[in-house]
Amino acid sequence: MAGQEAAPRWRCDVLPGDREAVRRLTQSTGVFHPFEIDVAVELVDERLARGPSSGYEFLFAEENGEAVGYACFGPIALTQGSYDLYWIAVAKDRQGCGLGRMLLSESERLIAAAGGRQVYIETSGRDVYEPTRQFYLRCGYRIAAVLGDFYAAGDDKVIFVKAIRPSAAEGSARRA
Amino acid sequence: MAGQEAAPRWRCDVLPGDREAVRRLTQSTGVFHPFEIDVAVELVDERLARGPSSGYEFLFAEENGEAVGYACFGPIALTQGSYDLYWIAVAKDRQGCGLGRMLLSESERLIAAAGGRQVYIETSGRDVYEPTRQFYLRCGYRIAAVLGDFYAAGDDKVIFVKAIRPSAAEGSARRA
Repeated sequence: MAGQEAAPRWRCDVLPGDREAVRRLTQSTGVFHPFEIDVAVELVDERLARGPSSGYEFLFAEENGEAVGYACFGPIALTQGSYDLYWIAVAKDRQGCGLGRMLLSESERLIAAAGGRQVYIETSGRDVYEPTRQFYLRCGYRIAAVLGDFYAAGDDKVIFVKAIRPSAAEGSARRA
Repeated sequence: MAGQEAAPRWRCDVLPGDREAVRRLTQSTGVFHPFEIDVAVELVDERLARGPSSGYEFLFAEENGEAVGYACFGPIALTQGSYDLYWIAVAKDRQGCGLGRMLLSESERLIAAAGGRQVYIETSGRDVYEPTRQFYLRCGYRIAAVLGDFYAAGDDKVIFVKAIRPSAAEGSARRA
């Protein structure tokens, strides 16, 4: 793959068809449990039902009218400027092209434009998530904490964090 | 105060009047922001509306028919056996008598009876929470992580954890 990829088309509004898009994307990665995929889809439902007050923002990367990756993030309740990145997934056959990095970078830009100070990402300490953890480290995140046996016995939670600079609202995704 | 106190009457079912009880108890402590108190009350609403599927369990300590303290806890989504203690509060004029310790101990017993392996408590690193943090340490919790500037600039999140032993369902509160 050539290092330089054209940016995909970004979309922030959430449509009913995104339920299936999110299911397809998360399934294609092969790392999520079925019950985790159900939760990913439930967040789409929450967003469709309650709008921005759901606390869930979405960013879809589209190529030829099809979602090839997405991120879901939102402000953490009871905090000023701390955001959680809840989900990020790139279609299996589109991985390795820098799309994940672009999704994360664009999400951070939107979060900064909304006044965010820092982004948290929680993931598993299991071996299957090692490439995921390396990805976050390459993207400028650091490990803030490891909670042993959090998800289950032998399955730790690793909390990543990245400080970002709040900026004026000029996220390119909003202009797409 | 004498060290030995009689156990209060425990109550696990949640009643409409508990909205005001929770507001009164959390306000009386003097440490919670108004928007935090609103969230505490919202959890009662969630429980009243959705029952156990809300994910919020309550434990009230009653004396002479009045709630003098309460705890709210529940299983953490996507985990096997990890629980969050969301709230614990004792009426200002009943503090210092061991009621908080009894509430926490009884909550842990109920969590263990439900199959919980460990209990997490998140609190603020602000000075006003120093007695709270000392209380958790005295009750056998350890600091698992500190997330800097989590709640706001200069306001860290401190995550406590305690491993508990899952037990057969015999919580005394269920029999009270």
